[in-house]
Amino acid sequence: MTRYTIAIIVGSLREASFNRKVARSLCAIEKDRLDCSIIEIGDLPLYNQDYDGTPQEPASYARFREAVAAVDGILFVSPEYNRGMPGVLKNAIDVGSRPYGSSVWNQKPAAIVTASPGAIGGFGSNHQIRQSCVFLNMPVMPHPEAYLGHVNDDSFGDDGLVKDGPLKDILTGLANAFADWVHLIHEARGLIAAK
Amino acid sequence: MTRYTIAIIVGSLREASFNRKVARSLCAIEKDRLDCSIIEIGDLPLYNQDYDGTPQEPASYARFREAVAAVDGILFVSPEYNRGMPGVLKNAIDVGSRPYGSSVWNQKPAAIVTASPGAIGGFGSNHQIRQSCVFLNMPVMPHPEAYLGHVNDDSFGDDGLVKDGPLKDILTGLANAFADWVHLIHEARGLIAAK
Amino acid sequence: MTRYTIAIIVGSLREASFNRKVARSLCAIEKDRLDCSIIEIGDLPLYNQDYDGTPQEPASYARFREAVAAVDGILFVSPEYNRGMPGVLKNAIDVGSRPYGSSVWNQKPAAIVTASPGAIGGFGSNHQIRQSCVFLNMPVMPHPEAYLGHVNDDSFGDDGLVKDGPLKDILTGLANAFADWVHLIHEARGLIAAK
Amino acid sequence: MTRYTIAIIVGSLREASFNRKVARSLCAIEKDRLDCSIIEIGDLPLYNQDYDGTPQEPASYARFREAVAAVDGILFVSPEYNRGMPGVLKNAIDVGSRPYGSSVWNQKPAAIVTASPGAIGGFGSNHQIRQSCVFLNMPVMPHPEAYLGHVNDDSFGDDGLVKDGPLKDILTGLANAFADWVHLIHEARGLIAAK
Repeated sequence: MTRYTIAIIVGSLREASFNRKVARSLCAIEKDRLDCSIIEIGDLPLYNQDYDGTPQEPASYARFREAVAAVDGILFVSPEYNRGMPGVLKNAIDVGSRPYGSSVWNQKPAAIVTASPGAIGGFGSNHQIRQSCVFLNMPVMPHPEAYLGHVNDDSFGDDGLVKDGPLKDILTGLANAFADWVHLIHEARGLIAAK
Repeated sequence: MTRYTIAIIVGSLREASFNRKVARSLCAIEKDRLDCSIIEIGDLPLYNQDYDGTPQEPASYARFREAVAAVDGILFVSPEYNRGMPGVLKNAIDVGSRPYGSSVWNQKPAAIVTASPGAIGGFGSNHQIRQSCVFLNMPVMPHPEAYLGHVNDDSFGDDGLVKDGPLKDILTGLANAFADWVHLIHEARGLIAAK
Repeated sequence: MTRYTIAIIVGSLREASFNRKVARSLCAIEKDRLDCSIIEIGDLPLYNQDYDGTPQEPASYARFREAVAAVDGILFVSPEYNRGMPGVLKNAIDVGSRPYGSSVWNQKPAAIVTASPGAIGGFGSNHQIRQSCVFLNMPVMPHPEAYLGHVNDDSFGDDGLVKDGPLKDILTGLANAFADWVHLIHEARGLIAAK
Repeated sequence: MTRYTIAIIVGSLREASFNRKVARSLCAIEKDRLDCSIIEIGDLPLYNQDYDGTPQEPASYARFREAVAAVDGILFVSPEYNRGMPGVLKNAIDVGSRPYGSSVWNQKPAAIVTASPGAIGGFGSNHQIRQSCVFLNMPVMPHPEAYLGHVNDDSFGDDGLVKDGPLKDILTGLANAFADWVHLIHEARGLIAAK
């Protein structure tokens, strides 16, 4: 069985972020097939194109781009702010996509999970992330969709992982499907390349 | 070399539709790998859930669903109306998706091409089709994106196919990538199923 | 007090449509300020640009366009199909927008309400309607947003109107805000024109 | 004639930003009716909800929120990054929207202009900004739409303002319409409040 390295990008900087707990829970479920690590984005200064290729470029940009470039797949786990993707997450996507022609997102298989305490589960955020992934040439898992509503402190145990219950069942299905998706994309590429 | 059957869904009923010509041009370019046929959608009455599973259901619904169910992949080629997907195309998507649990779109690899005489090339239409394909569990080719602007009568020859020039180069790249994408998805599924 | 005529466009043809009941409930709440009537869209054949200005144009197109042109404001009430606006509703929008330059939607103040039995309340449908309204030059009420989830048969009484409870409170707020919005847009235009 | 104060938010930090020049050109055209100033967003650290109401909250947050709260209207002028709103702009929107219940965007009339060197003119960015403005209860000018394509250094003179030509005509129409829109919203509110 192939084990894939996965970069998790969490769209909230809040220390007790629900989305961070969702991300960790997904990883725990598929730890045999997915080797996940959260790549922090809170230290990435706001992207400015004038930085590209200059000494003014923040050192954290290189650190972030190298970490993303090294993995086999990407898992975005994010809340919704103001009916859209959080600025903090979009900034990380923008940093990784530049300089022009050197995007580290290119061809990485991905999945997108959004969670919120409200009913709508981050639908607006979810589809904005998808829209960027089209441009970035990332094959994103279509199904199952993951608009996780009513997620709050009660959803998780003291270990920070999802408790048994309906949310855990959903996360289990998501984690399984994502491991399958990453495998499918990599296997298929290898197969075609070998011909 | 495997040859895949492809259903083309054209989002315009206009007889001299540019999008129909774009679709035919794409098929001509990859005729060795893709066996394309346009499935007509102009005779599908507006979807009404009350029809589901009743004798009132239009006969054209069954005809359309069977034609879509039979193919290996889907190519949407559409204009934009009022910054969105044309109603005629969305109606066809809705018809194919029902009754609930019997969607004929499920798991079909797809590509989305939009063309218009204006500059924007149907961006709004393109991403609305993508949004439905997520729900419908269709792996959609992310790249190259296809927002084809400035498409008009001069783009095509007397045979209705794209003339030599920049648009033909773009369509050639799209057709090649789509044939690769359909192949990748089917190969990978076969490989994984065989294990 | 000015009473405004409102065309209600319901995005579902189902006879027992929840959205139709929501629309009727909104009208009942503000019947002193809003004179609402549902304009039917189920008899509009799929839009085909070849019809424009020809004898082939369906008679129902003229009937629909005249009915919309005559009113002071528009209330869209719709479900979501496949994460987007139903084809039947988009087709009506397309019919009303043509022939090019003769759109009957132009400058009409509007509100957009989406309702569904699920949790998400038609978020995807709601924002696709908004995207078309931008192009159609319709000032759409921004607030309160109306993604009405968990709407089902139990939400309504035998008279087809919303029962007392949380949904009725939400609909009351929406109806009040919409009457204010239509009034604001018309008053302001009159005031500016009079100067 | 009433003169309105307008906060301009530019979605690019690039020093020679085209969007900054577009913004300044719009202001120059309507300087008699609009008193514009660019509010800088480059010094706003990435939003973190843990800051809300604590001494850790960056001082620039208060400076930004006060500047936005003081004006009569908002003009967003932005490029598109990765088919969406730039992270730097979304971060500013997020900062202004919090703490929960204290959004400084509430009820501000707004317009959204997107410009890019490419053909599509920032369509994806434009509609993502609109989607947030719905939640933020901002009445956004629907028309004319402003997806400004093919904007580059040649579009502007040595003074940084748009040269005579088609782009200037478009910007003139936009500036006039925005001044009308801000006036319409404020007049109407005053009128209704006075009754």
